[in-house]
Amino acid sequence: MMVLEPFERLVKVLGRLPGVGKRSAERMARRLLRSSGGLLKELVLALQEADRALGSCSRCGSLTARAEDPCRLCTDPRRDDAILCVVEDPADIALLESAGLFRGRYHALMGRLSPQRGEGVNDLRIESLLKRAREPGVKEVILATNPDVEGDATASFLREALAPAGVIVTRLGLGIPAGSGIAYADAATLSRALEGRRRI
Amino acid sequence: MMVLEPFERLVKVLGRLPGVGKRSAERMARRLLRSSGGLLKELVLALQEADRALGSCSRCGSLTARAEDPCRLCTDPRRDDAILCVVEDPADIALLESAGLFRGRYHALMGRLSPQRGEGVNDLRIESLLKRAREPGVKEVILATNPDVEGDATASFLREALAPAGVIVTRLGLGIPAGSGIAYADAATLSRALEGRRRI
Repeated sequence: MMVLEPFERLVKVLGRLPGVGKRSAERMARRLLRSSGGLLKELVLALQEADRALGSCSRCGSLTARAEDPCRLCTDPRRDDAILCVVEDPADIALLESAGLFRGRYHALMGRLSPQRGEGVNDLRIESLLKRAREPGVKEVILATNPDVEGDATASFLREALAPAGVIVTRLGLGIPAGSGIAYADAATLSRALEGRRRI
Repeated sequence: MMVLEPFERLVKVLGRLPGVGKRSAERMARRLLRSSGGLLKELVLALQEADRALGSCSRCGSLTARAEDPCRLCTDPRRDDAILCVVEDPADIALLESAGLFRGRYHALMGRLSPQRGEGVNDLRIESLLKRAREPGVKEVILATNPDVEGDATASFLREALAPAGVIVTRLGLGIPAGSGIAYADAATLSRALEGRRRI
């Protein structure tokens, strides 16, 4: 088969999306190019609109409208400033919110400590976390990193780093199967994990 | 969680890609929006470039550069005009080419007869197929539709429709597991299917 450069480039970019291998990327690219441009043009518009309208909350890191920074979760007066829930990824905030039990504030690290991928302390939003933990009224920091090797190592590091702040540091407890990820847990599991959190 | 309209719209469009459910679409959208716009902008550029540079061959229907219509498969003088291989989808042409055995010409139907999805004779490239089958020199038409209910029904319909053209009509033979699809077959399986094709 002849090689069509713009096709190969599109396949390559699609292949960088989570869960998309080379074969799926090819199927997606062909589907996009087939429908007389309809789906492709819709996707371009949706991407441009999302890029224009959305961004990260400068305080907690979650997805928010650019016009709302800090985001609604950070400014909602009914939420509890005393508890800060630390997650790896902004997507985890959406999942915890859908569980509906937690009413404190969030902080997304934008990753986790990963020597393998070369992600260190300075690549994560740790400086701002330590600053927030020192704000008056903060009593507890829940470390909701994933319960796997890197997530546990990140939690251990943060527990040490948070010690001078004088806050209670807890970790999500019962509920999430070890070796798995928060992204795969359902609402009930996440609720149990929050209720069963333990001090570390 | 608050609903962010541009986010929901992006998830919806991504969810129309093959093999992408709501959860995967959400993960993709979040990944696209996270990397400070890098991946998102690359995807937009790749889509726009592919849209600009690529199209369907007006003769066989396969993906081709807009500047090359008819495509290289249709104009290659070393290929055999006597055999026409009919597939449902242009992606199947790429797969058959990667098997490397077939040296005739192709014709993509852009679908198959599907009463369920409301796809009938006029939605497919059948008119142009019948015209091509009547061109001087064409001796055989291989019906390489998928070996499932709709693919078989499409082949039956085409066999009848092709009868007046006076060509030999064959169907891909041994090799493709029944109930499966061409897109899942490897090169060896496709080669065997081509060699073992039978007249219907």
